[in-house]
Amino acid sequence: MAVAYKHYLSSEKPIKSVESMMVSTQPSSSPTNRASKVLLTQDELKKIAAYEAVKFVQSGMVLGLGTGSTAKHAVDKIGELLKQGKLKNIVGIPTSNVTRDQAISVGIPLSDLDKHPIMDLSIDGADEVDPHMNLVKGRGGSLLREKMVEATSKKFIVIVDESKLVKYIGGSGLAMPVEIVQFCWKFTLSRLEMLFMEAGCVGKLRKFGDSEEPFVTDNGNYIIDLYFKKDIGDLKAASDAILRLPGVVEHGMFLDMATTLIVAGEHGVRVTNKLT
Amino acid sequence: MAVAYKHYLSSEKPIKSVESMMVSTQPSSSPTNRASKVLLTQDELKKIAAYEAVKFVQSGMVLGLGTGSTAKHAVDKIGELLKQGKLKNIVGIPTSNVTRDQAISVGIPLSDLDKHPIMDLSIDGADEVDPHMNLVKGRGGSLLREKMVEATSKKFIVIVDESKLVKYIGGSGLAMPVEIVQFCWKFTLSRLEMLFMEAGCVGKLRKFGDSEEPFVTDNGNYIIDLYFKKDIGDLKAASDAILRLPGVVEHGMFLDMATTLIVAGEHGVRVTNKLT
Repeated sequence: MAVAYKHYLSSEKPIKSVESMMVSTQPSSSPTNRASKVLLTQDELKKIAAYEAVKFVQSGMVLGLGTGSTAKHAVDKIGELLKQGKLKNIVGIPTSNVTRDQAISVGIPLSDLDKHPIMDLSIDGADEVDPHMNLVKGRGGSLLREKMVEATSKKFIVIVDESKLVKYIGGSGLAMPVEIVQFCWKFTLSRLEMLFMEAGCVGKLRKFGDSEEPFVTDNGNYIIDLYFKKDIGDLKAASDAILRLPGVVEHGMFLDMATTLIVAGEHGVRVTNKLT
Repeated sequence: MAVAYKHYLSSEKPIKSVESMMVSTQPSSSPTNRASKVLLTQDELKKIAAYEAVKFVQSGMVLGLGTGSTAKHAVDKIGELLKQGKLKNIVGIPTSNVTRDQAISVGIPLSDLDKHPIMDLSIDGADEVDPHMNLVKGRGGSLLREKMVEATSKKFIVIVDESKLVKYIGGSGLAMPVEIVQFCWKFTLSRLEMLFMEAGCVGKLRKFGDSEEPFVTDNGNYIIDLYFKKDIGDLKAASDAILRLPGVVEHGMFLDMATTLIVAGEHGVRVTNKLT
């Protein structure tokens, strides 16, 4: 997917070829593999982006550790570098209970926001990235803790494979999650839908896996997944309108927070820094 | 306390004397009681304001039932009128578990926001009322549910004794409560204080009674009580700034929500309707 990053300084590093790192996922006789290039799986692209981000990590840093299938690779890599002695004195602040457990298992010393209120660097994935580097996060259900940690980061690197790039927030047709209190959730759901009526908004209570039980966040709240048929327009206005609804705890739009975007795609890894 | 309500239509009813309802709380020889007037207790003033509000209740209404020492009198009175057959077909939506229990005990049929998303009328007390009819609520800890119910009311009557009138929000020197998630509450407390640094803001975690245990809301959250040394200025800007902090669930400023204010004081009951 070609995306023009016109909106921020083009201080991009030259696009790095990752072909040397490519691993065949298809038989050599595959008709899609004629030019001796092979397709990388989505997970391999995620890993490439994650490893590129970990190059920004330096000894002594306080690190926000993201949650999800892409961030997981970064956490693994940081643990590996600590074990090898290539990184020292790292303090990790996990953005979910899942990440906390993973970080402990790979040997990253942990703390929390109360003791370390400012991150030197956070690394996390995203569900959508628009051309202004605004994000949708939280399909994994950890949006609130992620936002608390990443909002207080000097540098916030977002790592995605290119399937996450969208023309506008909601443009993937997938969910924009909103964390709400359990009390009268149907009422809050209907008020959220009304807010974005013109964008053809439909909201659904997130369920736990395949069950009929509601998904409950680490904070004891529910998630409403909002689906938009059209661009919702001014995102800051949309953000404030959502937050003003009593019953809403947080939403999954991360506006003006990412400072660096790393996208791994078929043609290589692109690193883009936002103009500050 | 004299407060000029310049800011909304002066469609006030003439001030009604409540002297006929006054009950002596002092011995007749009291030097403060020379003109055969007696001082009413604060609770008597609350009751007078509450009963005045209940005059607006009509049969068939969906009613938001407030929480606290003033609203309690209104709930009792509505139950009494139902028992006497003077009101019929009332549906009450309680704003807290405490009010729910009280309403059941006095025989008010109850429902919830999911089934009745619009109130015909809500009646509730307030901790502070400024000259623009903006409120502080939530010292009782039910601010979120109160705001959910009262934000969806066609008419919202606020009932207070005159000690609750302030020149500006925070002007009583008492708390403006903010409901926050438990996760890293010290971090959120310090971010709230920073937001209002210029107003000399100090925040305190609310404790449960005299214990050292944190107070936990009906929604499983904590309350930070903010104390301001000065006027915080633009309240809508302050509201948005608070709500934008990840970790904040809701705050106790009820801006532009009250439609009628009933104040009971030494000189009578004043009913003021806001210009809409």
